[in-house]
Amino acid sequence: MLVRRFYDDRLAQASFLIGCQQTGDAIVIDPARDIAPYLEAARNEGVRIAHVSETHIHADFVSGTRELAHATGATVHLSGAGGADWQYRYPASDQVSLLQPDDVITLGRVTLRVLHTPGHTPEHIAFVVTDRARSLEPVAIVSGDFLFVGDVGRPDLLEVAAGVAGTKEASARSLFHSLQQLAALPDHLQVWPGHGAGSACGKALGSLPSSTLGYERLTGWAFQASDEAAFVAAVLEGQPTPPPYFAHMKHVNRDGAELLGNAAPAMLAFADLAAARRDGTLLDIRPIAAYQQQHLRGTISIPLRQSLTKWAGWLIPYDRPLYLIADDAAAAVQAQRALAAIGLDRVAGVFGVDALRDAAVAGETESGRRVTILDAARLQHGGTVIIDVREDDEWSHGHISAAVHHPLGTLMTTMAGFDRATPVAVHCQGGTRSAIAASVLDAMGFGDVTDLSGGWKEWQRKVSPA
Amino acid sequence: MLVRRFYDDRLAQASFLIGCQQTGDAIVIDPARDIAPYLEAARNEGVRIAHVSETHIHADFVSGTRELAHATGATVHLSGAGGADWQYRYPASDQVSLLQPDDVITLGRVTLRVLHTPGHTPEHIAFVVTDRARSLEPVAIVSGDFLFVGDVGRPDLLEVAAGVAGTKEASARSLFHSLQQLAALPDHLQVWPGHGAGSACGKALGSLPSSTLGYERLTGWAFQASDEAAFVAAVLEGQPTPPPYFAHMKHVNRDGAELLGNAAPAMLAFADLAAARRDGTLLDIRPIAAYQQQHLRGTISIPLRQSLTKWAGWLIPYDRPLYLIADDAAAAVQAQRALAAIGLDRVAGVFGVDALRDAAVAGETESGRRVTILDAARLQHGGTVIIDVREDDEWSHGHISAAVHHPLGTLMTTMAGFDRATPVAVHCQGGTRSAIAASVLDAMGFGDVTDLSGGWKEWQRKVSPA
Amino acid sequence: MLVRRFYDDRLAQASFLIGCQQTGDAIVIDPARDIAPYLEAARNEGVRIAHVSETHIHADFVSGTRELAHATGATVHLSGAGGADWQYRYPASDQVSLLQPDDVITLGRVTLRVLHTPGHTPEHIAFVVTDRARSLEPVAIVSGDFLFVGDVGRPDLLEVAAGVAGTKEASARSLFHSLQQLAALPDHLQVWPGHGAGSACGKALGSLPSSTLGYERLTGWAFQASDEAAFVAAVLEGQPTPPPYFAHMKHVNRDGAELLGNAAPAMLAFADLAAARRDGTLLDIRPIAAYQQQHLRGTISIPLRQSLTKWAGWLIPYDRPLYLIADDAAAAVQAQRALAAIGLDRVAGVFGVDALRDAAVAGETESGRRVTILDAARLQHGGTVIIDVREDDEWSHGHISAAVHHPLGTLMTTMAGFDRATPVAVHCQGGTRSAIAASVLDAMGFGDVTDLSGGWKEWQRKVSPA
Amino acid sequence: MLVRRFYDDRLAQASFLIGCQQTGDAIVIDPARDIAPYLEAARNEGVRIAHVSETHIHADFVSGTRELAHATGATVHLSGAGGADWQYRYPASDQVSLLQPDDVITLGRVTLRVLHTPGHTPEHIAFVVTDRARSLEPVAIVSGDFLFVGDVGRPDLLEVAAGVAGTKEASARSLFHSLQQLAALPDHLQVWPGHGAGSACGKALGSLPSSTLGYERLTGWAFQASDEAAFVAAVLEGQPTPPPYFAHMKHVNRDGAELLGNAAPAMLAFADLAAARRDGTLLDIRPIAAYQQQHLRGTISIPLRQSLTKWAGWLIPYDRPLYLIADDAAAAVQAQRALAAIGLDRVAGVFGVDALRDAAVAGETESGRRVTILDAARLQHGGTVIIDVREDDEWSHGHISAAVHHPLGTLMTTMAGFDRATPVAVHCQGGTRSAIAASVLDAMGFGDVTDLSGGWKEWQRKVSPA
Repeated sequence: MLVRRFYDDRLAQASFLIGCQQTGDAIVIDPARDIAPYLEAARNEGVRIAHVSETHIHADFVSGTRELAHATGATVHLSGAGGADWQYRYPASDQVSLLQPDDVITLGRVTLRVLHTPGHTPEHIAFVVTDRARSLEPVAIVSGDFLFVGDVGRPDLLEVAAGVAGTKEASARSLFHSLQQLAALPDHLQVWPGHGAGSACGKALGSLPSSTLGYERLTGWAFQASDEAAFVAAVLEGQPTPPPYFAHMKHVNRDGAELLGNAAPAMLAFADLAAARRDGTLLDIRPIAAYQQQHLRGTISIPLRQSLTKWAGWLIPYDRPLYLIADDAAAAVQAQRALAAIGLDRVAGVFGVDALRDAAVAGETESGRRVTILDAARLQHGGTVIIDVREDDEWSHGHISAAVHHPLGTLMTTMAGFDRATPVAVHCQGGTRSAIAASVLDAMGFGDVTDLSGGWKEWQRKVSPA
Repeated sequence: MLVRRFYDDRLAQASFLIGCQQTGDAIVIDPARDIAPYLEAARNEGVRIAHVSETHIHADFVSGTRELAHATGATVHLSGAGGADWQYRYPASDQVSLLQPDDVITLGRVTLRVLHTPGHTPEHIAFVVTDRARSLEPVAIVSGDFLFVGDVGRPDLLEVAAGVAGTKEASARSLFHSLQQLAALPDHLQVWPGHGAGSACGKALGSLPSSTLGYERLTGWAFQASDEAAFVAAVLEGQPTPPPYFAHMKHVNRDGAELLGNAAPAMLAFADLAAARRDGTLLDIRPIAAYQQQHLRGTISIPLRQSLTKWAGWLIPYDRPLYLIADDAAAAVQAQRALAAIGLDRVAGVFGVDALRDAAVAGETESGRRVTILDAARLQHGGTVIIDVREDDEWSHGHISAAVHHPLGTLMTTMAGFDRATPVAVHCQGGTRSAIAASVLDAMGFGDVTDLSGGWKEWQRKVSPA
Repeated sequence: MLVRRFYDDRLAQASFLIGCQQTGDAIVIDPARDIAPYLEAARNEGVRIAHVSETHIHADFVSGTRELAHATGATVHLSGAGGADWQYRYPASDQVSLLQPDDVITLGRVTLRVLHTPGHTPEHIAFVVTDRARSLEPVAIVSGDFLFVGDVGRPDLLEVAAGVAGTKEASARSLFHSLQQLAALPDHLQVWPGHGAGSACGKALGSLPSSTLGYERLTGWAFQASDEAAFVAAVLEGQPTPPPYFAHMKHVNRDGAELLGNAAPAMLAFADLAAARRDGTLLDIRPIAAYQQQHLRGTISIPLRQSLTKWAGWLIPYDRPLYLIADDAAAAVQAQRALAAIGLDRVAGVFGVDALRDAAVAGETESGRRVTILDAARLQHGGTVIIDVREDDEWSHGHISAAVHHPLGTLMTTMAGFDRATPVAVHCQGGTRSAIAASVLDAMGFGDVTDLSGGWKEWQRKVSPA
Repeated sequence: MLVRRFYDDRLAQASFLIGCQQTGDAIVIDPARDIAPYLEAARNEGVRIAHVSETHIHADFVSGTRELAHATGATVHLSGAGGADWQYRYPASDQVSLLQPDDVITLGRVTLRVLHTPGHTPEHIAFVVTDRARSLEPVAIVSGDFLFVGDVGRPDLLEVAAGVAGTKEASARSLFHSLQQLAALPDHLQVWPGHGAGSACGKALGSLPSSTLGYERLTGWAFQASDEAAFVAAVLEGQPTPPPYFAHMKHVNRDGAELLGNAAPAMLAFADLAAARRDGTLLDIRPIAAYQQQHLRGTISIPLRQSLTKWAGWLIPYDRPLYLIADDAAAAVQAQRALAAIGLDRVAGVFGVDALRDAAVAGETESGRRVTILDAARLQHGGTVIIDVREDDEWSHGHISAAVHHPLGTLMTTMAGFDRATPVAVHCQGGTRSAIAASVLDAMGFGDVTDLSGGWKEWQRKVSPA
């Protein structure tokens, strides 16, 4: 048996290539939309991707199932176990096989048996993997968002993110019963989950790539609940706020994501800027420093290298064309791919260095203001409001006493009512998020924005050491 | 707890970074000599490498323990359990701590408890890892070359590779007893071994990166042996021939490998060629095609991209200076690092494109001969000897009827007595090894050498389909 | 004044950016279709491309005039001096200004005065450049294909390449009179021509990038002709055969080349191969070695790195879709751009490594045969025909006695009638062209093709030293 | 004849490869110390560098003559015409041939005749090039620092930079007489000078790569002087201040620069920082943004990408070891090469990202302060001194009224006496030099330094449009 795990750091998301070396048959489970890594791995390992499947309708990224099936001719296996309300609606032309509990997918001497594990979502399935070349005992469970290392998949997303009111308790109860099913499986079973630490699909995911059923049974909080009611209460408590794009993803993945073309976005000239401004969003993906040196007025800066996927999901609207500001076409293509991972497919064009230069000549650019956080007191004294854009838990571990707290993800909403003439200065933990936040406030119309470099780390080191 | 696994495909070798995110303390176990990946990972994960250790005195690669300790200031932990004959002999200036059974290394809330597991080597230890942030139950065992996925570390290397006669049965018995120790550990324990499929440190290593103790107990052949005698017989049977450099590695790693400098090898001119030829070995690391197009007479071709480490261990002598033929300095530096991984440290200089051009003008170069394997019959009819350089198991699965069999690793020895005037043609499975083999024969003085492209795969497809 | 010369080695073609640093105005003359270098240079030099022009309707490459004007908004200046038959037919929507003799284009303190210089083509113009910041004396003439270093632009292309019968003598006479015009210009005038050594637009172009009018008057053969008749005879003698695509270019450039999009060609799967084979041409742009190792049956191999533009102009038909075989998308995009330079715009898709692997499994691939040229005698003795694919002048300087001569450019035509069962072996000067030739013969259906590496150079060195 | 011009933008310095294609012999004149481009060009053109020469003892960069001769075995040709005081003092082991007026170097059918052209320096020579394959008339003069496009080589460097008092008038008179020699040469002769616009070896160099003798005679200011006295007065007026390192270069180049090794600088750890600080200079070559985000206290920032060579010559002392702060070893090697071009050979080590991280933990780092120049008035009002670091001519074309003027090159000297407690803010034209200046002031001990982004350009656009 052959297993390759793929992990997308930005999405904290895992997918798996499982195959039989003797016959060369392989399956990919929970593929991301950028399918190049699967094709390359199959090539290197000498196997053929004959099957593609997924554990459930994902909410946090666009599934690559259709894309990969299209590129390889593989059969698509989708859960048919979700009941009438949770059936996939892929185009009729797609070659789809619906899976029911105890169905088995066979790859040479490797088999995958389907478990129906509702809770995180109604149609969720998991795969019990057996390597018959070694034994009839199962090796592992590909558990998707059902069971994580140290956690379980949250059952409240349908209600909280997708707006299906009144479902979270029922889902939590389903999840409790799904966990009972595992009693029949051995301690030595490896657990290969769909997410790692940092995912919003749970609240306490561990950072190990895998675990074992025995270890989770002994140590996982979800297995210690005394009864269903206790479990339901525990699992619904303390879940993080999901990003707004999750609701959109559910529909995209249920209906089958559109196939990506190969087309690179068009390079635009300064003359195209007025129209882009009118009906689209401007997103600057260059390094922070380039943005601060010179940028188009009204752009949001989320550097390609720094969590573009994550922050775009919070800060960029889905219903408008998106225009990138990029150093070159290659960076734009990378960004296009990263944005497509969460369904931001409407990249309508790219303004490059030529357009920027022409904009500068026309007086349409400005530069940013960045001072060390050690200046915060001086700024505050002069009337500037200090805004801390970190997460709740970071804030609660310590913060500058006179700062106000507006986490980056929801900054546009929470700052919407403020007077744009107020001087503001933003900081975060180390200086990455504050740069994005400064651009957001600038794009919202604040006229006097300062980015405080160094962040809380530097403040602690130099001003108030613990 | 944080775990990062590093895997060197060329050596089929795994090393581990294990740390505690809360305190930032980390250890690296079984580091390779190129330590850049560990430094980078520690930086990305925000931990500090405060400890370095290794499971045993490696035979198949140069340990990076000293190198990494030197770069980080980390404490070195070495096995002190090997008895008088198997003690490390690191320089007195090194900061070394000797480990005994049940010693514990503590990294914040993570602990590693030492097991003495002799068999593969007398001093071999393993680490039982516990993540006290989750539970007092252990999570995993870092098993080194004691326990693999589906196999155990071979106990005969001391005798076969290092020439310590009469030790393999005793070692096999030690190994049997080491395995008994595992009875006290739970089924759910993850097993993180030091090698994967392809390593010469065992005979049947699985390709999964990890397993569980329960699964191995149920399915591993080594756990099924009825008694000690049966185990000893089984474990000593069918082990592959180790490469000749293994013997050398043992001494290097026992005494502490020399620290690598940063110096790139010197670029040499054509004028230096005569001296290089006289007392050194010429190794062409350019792509096969470049070698075949034009090469210095008497060079061995092992392309950087294709198993340089593996074949250099079989084909390049350790006791002479080594001269590279390379396209550019960057390739030479990469090769230098890859060769250093197995202790081939004597890279004395590099001949680049300028030297090659001057050599061509001086008539010191030649080009290779390559035809499709479909020409094999015609060549044979004309008196050419067809040589199959694949491994024994490949040969036994099928071969060209009139071919003779000389595996690449030992080709220099087995062909030493042949008449150099005999026309020879070499083939392998797909065309990579035969190109190396052709260069070896050319360097040995054979005057009429042909590389047969396509290999056994093409022959099967076109001439004798199964 | 600012001058930047751009030189495309593959086309031996020069273009010029000329500007005034004080006002920032600039012109590009004779741009190639890949306009990125002009945009980058303008950016670096801090000037704006406000004008684009060209000396004549080019026959050897697709003009970038429209492309560059579109990207910059520059005014297009075209010759209006060609008479009724030689007027440009750009789309009416383009912003075109027609130039007449003595018209002046002004860029700040730099002026370009138009000379009408028919001969190479009827509408040909040249520009006399004056830097008024230094003097009212002219600095240089941008001479296009009128006057080269040591040569003049051939007047026979209209007849020979474009098929306008009976025009070459008249054109030669025009050229003679155009040269008389230069009498009014000073010796110190720099001459900046449109081509360097290797171009097929003349017969004896020097390799210096520029010359002076005084030096050319003293030493250039065209200025030494005693009278018109002697000049006409001399200029029409010994001109090289132009590649077949020249005829096509004339129409493309007269009508205004189509704008290039940004779209990368689609990656195709093995399943698309049958259709591609049916109605298109297969072109393998991978390195020679990759082609020889394994290629699709029936493909022509012209590696991206080696004169792709030049040989594609001879060997690839313009009227069929073109399918590339490439290692990756980036290489395909580079090839697409290189092919677009000569108007091969119909790249319909790309077969990558995945498609090749599937083709290999299906038995649709084969490998090449390559032996050293030292084997030529042995092959010939066995009945193989040895074909020398070098140019006429190379052949006439020396060749293998029993070889036959078929230059690569016209190989498809001259070998069309041969029996495909004849074993053939090809060689060139050093081994680059013979590899292309071997693929051409293979694609034509020859069943037993051998590439002779080393070429005439190796033969001379080892077999028949001069 | 073959000619290749090499131009180093950072040094505004030209060198030439001249050869004969028929025999393959070539010479390089005025090579820079990084000889890789010459070797590559010779390889591509198929010629052999058999001779190396230089027009004079350079003051502005380290000559690559010895380096190139060592790598190729070429004969070195040096001027022997400088009189007793200006003789080269190369090591006796070097193969040197001394050139006298009218000596001829022959390369196949190309000849170079020596002119002695004192003025810029006493031993200065130029080469009159003839391509006998075309004519016995000369083609061009390789004029070094004797004659530039639109200017002549300044005769005052010996006195001003090298401190040889009382020599500048005599040198100017020599130069006047050298120019008279040119009367014998024809108008059509091309002039290929050793520098372009931006060099400090003259005062008004044009930006064209070449000119002609006729054009220079007609338009060059130096040819219009009515008599010797007028010429001497004119040539000594308005010459720019040379960088301090020029004096050092003269000795280095007279004695023969040391050969560069291949060794890359050693990577250092945080533990090495204290020693480096004590006896060396810290130079941060990372992009400005990285420096501003976080840097070691007391470092000078000159980004590798931005005029490292130029500003290092002004700001870095030659007599102390130099320690680089770099992102990676590759950048450090590039910087090492760029610094070696002006003789800064004492790179003693490199602090990389690991060392920086450890320094941050130890509180040894700080971040920069950068605000838009639009804040200048506000800062000034609060007591900050605004410093304009541009050149004299930029300042005289317009500046912020209340700013003070301290050009970057001499900032350390002119600001040496200021109170380090004064808040200072620096600006330049566009934002590149001010970032370097801010680091210089920080390293000098100023405690409150602000970099004003946007520079004079932004100020003009937004505050005081012309």
